[in-house]
Amino acid sequence: MPDVSPATPDVRDDGVPTGVINCAAYSAGQRVADLPICDIHEALAHGDRFIWIGLNEPREEILREVQREFDLHDLAIEDALSAHQRPKLELYEGSLFVVLRTAQLLPGGGLEFGETHVFVGERYIVSVRHGSLKSHVGLRARCEATPQLLSKGPGFVLYALMDFIVDQYLPIVEALEEQLEALEEEIFGERFDRQTTGRIYRLKRDLLSLKRAVSPLVEVCNRLMRHDISLIPEDTRPYFRDIYDHVVRMNEMIDNLRELLTTALEANLSLISVSQTEHTKRLAAWAAIIAVPTMIAGVYGMNFDAMPELHWDYGYPLVMAIMLGACAALFIGFRRSGWL
Amino acid sequence: MPDVSPATPDVRDDGVPTGVINCAAYSAGQRVADLPICDIHEALAHGDRFIWIGLNEPREEILREVQREFDLHDLAIEDALSAHQRPKLELYEGSLFVVLRTAQLLPGGGLEFGETHVFVGERYIVSVRHGSLKSHVGLRARCEATPQLLSKGPGFVLYALMDFIVDQYLPIVEALEEQLEALEEEIFGERFDRQTTGRIYRLKRDLLSLKRAVSPLVEVCNRLMRHDISLIPEDTRPYFRDIYDHVVRMNEMIDNLRELLTTALEANLSLISVSQTEHTKRLAAWAAIIAVPTMIAGVYGMNFDAMPELHWDYGYPLVMAIMLGACAALFIGFRRSGWL
Amino acid sequence: MPDVSPATPDVRDDGVPTGVINCAAYSAGQRVADLPICDIHEALAHGDRFIWIGLNEPREEILREVQREFDLHDLAIEDALSAHQRPKLELYEGSLFVVLRTAQLLPGGGLEFGETHVFVGERYIVSVRHGSLKSHVGLRARCEATPQLLSKGPGFVLYALMDFIVDQYLPIVEALEEQLEALEEEIFGERFDRQTTGRIYRLKRDLLSLKRAVSPLVEVCNRLMRHDISLIPEDTRPYFRDIYDHVVRMNEMIDNLRELLTTALEANLSLISVSQTEHTKRLAAWAAIIAVPTMIAGVYGMNFDAMPELHWDYGYPLVMAIMLGACAALFIGFRRSGWL
Amino acid sequence: MPDVSPATPDVRDDGVPTGVINCAAYSAGQRVADLPICDIHEALAHGDRFIWIGLNEPREEILREVQREFDLHDLAIEDALSAHQRPKLELYEGSLFVVLRTAQLLPGGGLEFGETHVFVGERYIVSVRHGSLKSHVGLRARCEATPQLLSKGPGFVLYALMDFIVDQYLPIVEALEEQLEALEEEIFGERFDRQTTGRIYRLKRDLLSLKRAVSPLVEVCNRLMRHDISLIPEDTRPYFRDIYDHVVRMNEMIDNLRELLTTALEANLSLISVSQTEHTKRLAAWAAIIAVPTMIAGVYGMNFDAMPELHWDYGYPLVMAIMLGACAALFIGFRRSGWL
Amino acid sequence: MPDVSPATPDVRDDGVPTGVINCAAYSAGQRVADLPICDIHEALAHGDRFIWIGLNEPREEILREVQREFDLHDLAIEDALSAHQRPKLELYEGSLFVVLRTAQLLPGGGLEFGETHVFVGERYIVSVRHGSLKSHVGLRARCEATPQLLSKGPGFVLYALMDFIVDQYLPIVEALEEQLEALEEEIFGERFDRQTTGRIYRLKRDLLSLKRAVSPLVEVCNRLMRHDISLIPEDTRPYFRDIYDHVVRMNEMIDNLRELLTTALEANLSLISVSQTEHTKRLAAWAAIIAVPTMIAGVYGMNFDAMPELHWDYGYPLVMAIMLGACAALFIGFRRSGWL
Repeated sequence: MPDVSPATPDVRDDGVPTGVINCAAYSAGQRVADLPICDIHEALAHGDRFIWIGLNEPREEILREVQREFDLHDLAIEDALSAHQRPKLELYEGSLFVVLRTAQLLPGGGLEFGETHVFVGERYIVSVRHGSLKSHVGLRARCEATPQLLSKGPGFVLYALMDFIVDQYLPIVEALEEQLEALEEEIFGERFDRQTTGRIYRLKRDLLSLKRAVSPLVEVCNRLMRHDISLIPEDTRPYFRDIYDHVVRMNEMIDNLRELLTTALEANLSLISVSQTEHTKRLAAWAAIIAVPTMIAGVYGMNFDAMPELHWDYGYPLVMAIMLGACAALFIGFRRSGWL
Repeated sequence: MPDVSPATPDVRDDGVPTGVINCAAYSAGQRVADLPICDIHEALAHGDRFIWIGLNEPREEILREVQREFDLHDLAIEDALSAHQRPKLELYEGSLFVVLRTAQLLPGGGLEFGETHVFVGERYIVSVRHGSLKSHVGLRARCEATPQLLSKGPGFVLYALMDFIVDQYLPIVEALEEQLEALEEEIFGERFDRQTTGRIYRLKRDLLSLKRAVSPLVEVCNRLMRHDISLIPEDTRPYFRDIYDHVVRMNEMIDNLRELLTTALEANLSLISVSQTEHTKRLAAWAAIIAVPTMIAGVYGMNFDAMPELHWDYGYPLVMAIMLGACAALFIGFRRSGWL
Repeated sequence: MPDVSPATPDVRDDGVPTGVINCAAYSAGQRVADLPICDIHEALAHGDRFIWIGLNEPREEILREVQREFDLHDLAIEDALSAHQRPKLELYEGSLFVVLRTAQLLPGGGLEFGETHVFVGERYIVSVRHGSLKSHVGLRARCEATPQLLSKGPGFVLYALMDFIVDQYLPIVEALEEQLEALEEEIFGERFDRQTTGRIYRLKRDLLSLKRAVSPLVEVCNRLMRHDISLIPEDTRPYFRDIYDHVVRMNEMIDNLRELLTTALEANLSLISVSQTEHTKRLAAWAAIIAVPTMIAGVYGMNFDAMPELHWDYGYPLVMAIMLGACAALFIGFRRSGWL
Repeated sequence: MPDVSPATPDVRDDGVPTGVINCAAYSAGQRVADLPICDIHEALAHGDRFIWIGLNEPREEILREVQREFDLHDLAIEDALSAHQRPKLELYEGSLFVVLRTAQLLPGGGLEFGETHVFVGERYIVSVRHGSLKSHVGLRARCEATPQLLSKGPGFVLYALMDFIVDQYLPIVEALEEQLEALEEEIFGERFDRQTTGRIYRLKRDLLSLKRAVSPLVEVCNRLMRHDISLIPEDTRPYFRDIYDHVVRMNEMIDNLRELLTTALEANLSLISVSQTEHTKRLAAWAAIIAVPTMIAGVYGMNFDAMPELHWDYGYPLVMAIMLGACAALFIGFRRSGWL
Repeated sequence: MPDVSPATPDVRDDGVPTGVINCAAYSAGQRVADLPICDIHEALAHGDRFIWIGLNEPREEILREVQREFDLHDLAIEDALSAHQRPKLELYEGSLFVVLRTAQLLPGGGLEFGETHVFVGERYIVSVRHGSLKSHVGLRARCEATPQLLSKGPGFVLYALMDFIVDQYLPIVEALEEQLEALEEEIFGERFDRQTTGRIYRLKRDLLSLKRAVSPLVEVCNRLMRHDISLIPEDTRPYFRDIYDHVVRMNEMIDNLRELLTTALEANLSLISVSQTEHTKRLAAWAAIIAVPTMIAGVYGMNFDAMPELHWDYGYPLVMAIMLGACAALFIGFRRSGWL
């Protein structure tokens, strides 16, 4: 099966990619035809078929053509064109419109988000990708490998697509968990510096972004698995509950991370203060060790006529010994009390 | 179409502006007549027409005239006069009363809020602006450009108006996001000072004000798109869902910003403490570098008779070399351990 | 109309004030009779009348008399006697019992709270004031000035009373907003001191007290405007929605203030830390400026035989010039780097 | 009426207290018989009687006997034996099981909690106390003093018991409020020390414990006053609403205290920082005052041949005067700028 | 009864453990047969029997066999195989699927979590353990010891299993409470150091993990005790309410600990700051005590010709006495004001 070379033309007359990745008709779980968008109505004449179209940042004319074929609502198409939506589920007469956010971890450490919009009808499913690097081709192959499931129709394809996207979140959450662990080691292993605070902040920002992608899915899945959406066949609903479980679990992991991060930031501040106290103590200890001989030297630098020690033979070495002794005593004392 | 010069007189006999910007009758999506307020009842005699009136800080007598024409509720009119309302939707018998807040970014950086009140009935819509600099004239032109939509009646005009106002929030939220990014750079780029804290605070205050304008709209849209408000035609409801999505998304963005800001404030405090620790370390290092030669000099300033070093030929240069050496050793040591 | 001199006797035989401020019968919105409590049953014999009684910290016997006349519930009367209730609405068979808290700003800056309890029946309304300085006499006058509204009966009087009390909150909230603004100026205008923290704390305490008076009213108004409370006539409900709006808005303002205050407290801590850092820097700079000449002087106070500089003619002025130069260089350097 | 000497035997054959405090039958609000547990079935033969049993840490056999008499559920009895429950209401067929927590202030300042479990049936009420020092004897006497209320049956006794227990919370909440006020004075009256923080923490802990005893009662009362619990007669429900009001109010007071305490802890931290800044300033000021004469003295301790001042007749007093003058100037300057 | 040596073979032909711990049929609360998995259908031919299977990290083939026997849903089996689920209850046609988390305290102090998955049907219960060290053998023995309860069927076994697992949480929560108490003593007993902050953080992390295991059980128990799950017999539901109470109580204890921990972290920061202030004061005090004699010595080290004190017979001892006196005075002063 030609996964990567779609049967439908990817460019139009002007040589610009149209954004159509794949357009195929399925019957009883089997791909029965690859066809251009304009032939959809013919394919739909066969009462037992459904159409699965994959688009990637399509040109507006292509999307408008799809709209005409399936009679999609204007507002949904405009959403699919502009692509700055939060994840949601909209129910139009005879069709579902689902918006999902895709996420990927950048090599440098940050997160990048894309969007996938899905139109689902009785006999069609159209997915529109925006800014998502990972193609859905593997997904289509996997679906076609289980015809008994694929024969459940567009509702099942919607599940497979959502499952595919939600599965991409888990490694990201785990990567963020690892980042927190690295931060914990920095903070409590006394290797923190000014960058640590910045890293905590950036991790928080990433967590909040991810949360915004994940948490609306709880409601989306909830509606797909519970309510009377006739487009989702009865026996497909447990599958959406499965996604629901994943989403709720990831949501919890993210919240967990956020709360730990808040605590880590406060712990960091405490430890900075502790280390400040320790520096103050060390500073004080050394200041004392230097100040005491300075004071003694000052005393014997006085110009009194009658200072008998000055005339002792061993006055100088004695005083030097006293100075050293005082320093040593202070040093040992400070060390014992943990100041040095 | 004369957008900016309304057909209805803007001033009365006494030369004071009445606040009437526009008053027109529409039939099948077309503007069929501009008319003075007092002729409304005649226009309404044509069963297929609806009236769209635009007022800007109107004189009370004008508002009372409108009230009489459309039989509006006293409390709603009083709200429209005093203009210190939070966004809300009120359902009176035969009419809707909607309060919206308009927002604009001042050149100096703060936010300024105005209010727009809308009365919607079966065959009329009246908008009353307060303190909003941006006129609705462009909106009317845009509506008149799509007669097939405008023919849906006052419900659609309400949508267009709300969409117009909600669209003004997005650039503001984005401007606040940029302010946060600038603050992040200040904080983590070690260029923060006392103004930084003030800027964080002011951004928080702006976010809270904006939140108060945006968040009640979630409930307003929710009621407009869901409940059995017969004034909103069935096929206009998806449009309010569109506004709902925008509002929810902006709400999320604002909450996101607030949480990041809280973290930024704490991170800022941590970094201030870190920088304090660093200053303490540097202070301690320099103190040590100066104190050591002072101590040595003190020793050789003592007046003991028997201090052989004093009589060495090269005693002085030797001691000076020792001093310099001690200073250099300390300097290098502190630098290596990151104190200097 | 004799506003301040009630027709009913204010003192009993023993000369102690009874607490009865006013007791009058109304018919069709007009006051038709002032009467002593004991004549209420006669007045109620006229089927079209209702009684409005105003009490101020009444003696128990008076309250018991009122209870007998209108058959009020024991628990409500006990509440009205003890007066340590939170705002609430209780529905007894045939009567409503409403508890409101009145608030006033003390000249010294704090808040003082009183309570007003209201019993509403088909044909009577009894208000009982506790600790509220502001009399309701003006309210009665205002109600009597609009007979067409007053003719709606006790339900409307309840609205007027609640509106009267809720209107007293707004200037208080605004005064607290001004206090916050003054605090902001102190904090960010670098004029904060230890009193600032105390003022923030006290403002927080006042806000929490006010919140406890205002927020239960949301639920009270909600029940009055929505539920099937037959004592509130259909056409009076929009008025309670008006109060509801005010209460919700004040609630929001208070929450806003609380959140800003929390941020202000944290910002204050940051700025204290910043100012600490600055003091540390300044201290370090001056320490260095003094320590350097001290060290140089120490060197030339050494007693080596061979210190050629000591014997130079211009050795002393030269060294003094070096000292001054070093100090000046340090001073300029510190000033440039912002330490001084 | 023999309040403290119960008619039923308190010890069994082995001399160990059984835990039965009181066991009496009531008819029409009057105590008609004191009887041993084993005779309960006889008393219940009179159709118009109900039994009220008071137990205090009873032996298991006693509780099992009671269980057999009234056919109580195994799980409820096990709860009553183990006594580590949170406040709750459980509805079994034909009986209610209510768990309440009693609280008392220890002389040393902490809180101690006990538990009271209540079984209520159509014709019986059994209370089981654990670790509560305050006996219910006064309660029984008070109930028996109002036969017209007591005749309402076990539902009313349940109210009286809950009211009795809830009334014990108020003085505790007030004592905690006083503790907070004392803390406020410490913090803002600049008399705080390390103990202050510990006291804030312990108050927080007490508040959280109290909250855990009080807040579940909101739900318990709510169910008792609203739902169709046939064991609670219609005319007894307003009494539970009264308890509900008390509980909600105390809940609010506790939340209020918690929020103030959080603010107090932060304010305390701010003031500690302020006082640290002030100490730093004072330290710096005195350091300068001492360092300046030291430096001047160092200068005139130099051994240059040509230092004309050294040979002036009044050189010494002049320099001493300069030193003192410099110190005085510094002292006055620092005092004026608030550093000393 | 052979508790630890199961009748069913634990290893297959290849010698690898299959994971089957126990597989037995029960009738009227009595174990009537131990049987291999493959004979289940025979046992079910007896209409009055139910099967209880215990598995511990079973091989996939075993689980698939069980699936075939009881017709379990694919998704539930996949969950049971992968074992990274949050606690939940899923209702499939004719069967319940419950996921529980087991927890145990590691000797080193951390927490370790396992999972137990349970399939419950009309006539079977299958438990699948993952990573839980504590076997369920004791549980089976305890159930078999109360045949009258066990005869209630699989629903009761589910209760016993959940009770068994939930009972393991309590000692853990109590251990964490003890950890907090130890931390409190460290913090307020002034024995805190940098490790303290780390310990607070780790306790928080453990609490959050435990919370994630416990809190979803509230919803699980709620559904088991309330909703119309026909697999749970009517008279078994109060038992689930008992578990519900335990779970809610532990949830509260955990939340309590979390809030106290947050306060402890802040209190810790306050005390660190206090101790910093105290170190600063002590440092300042000693600096002054050393600086004063140094200054005096400097004065008498000046080389003025006319310094009469230098020539006094007792000049030197006098000055030394002054120095000592000044030091002593400072020392006493600082000690009195609490700086030393």
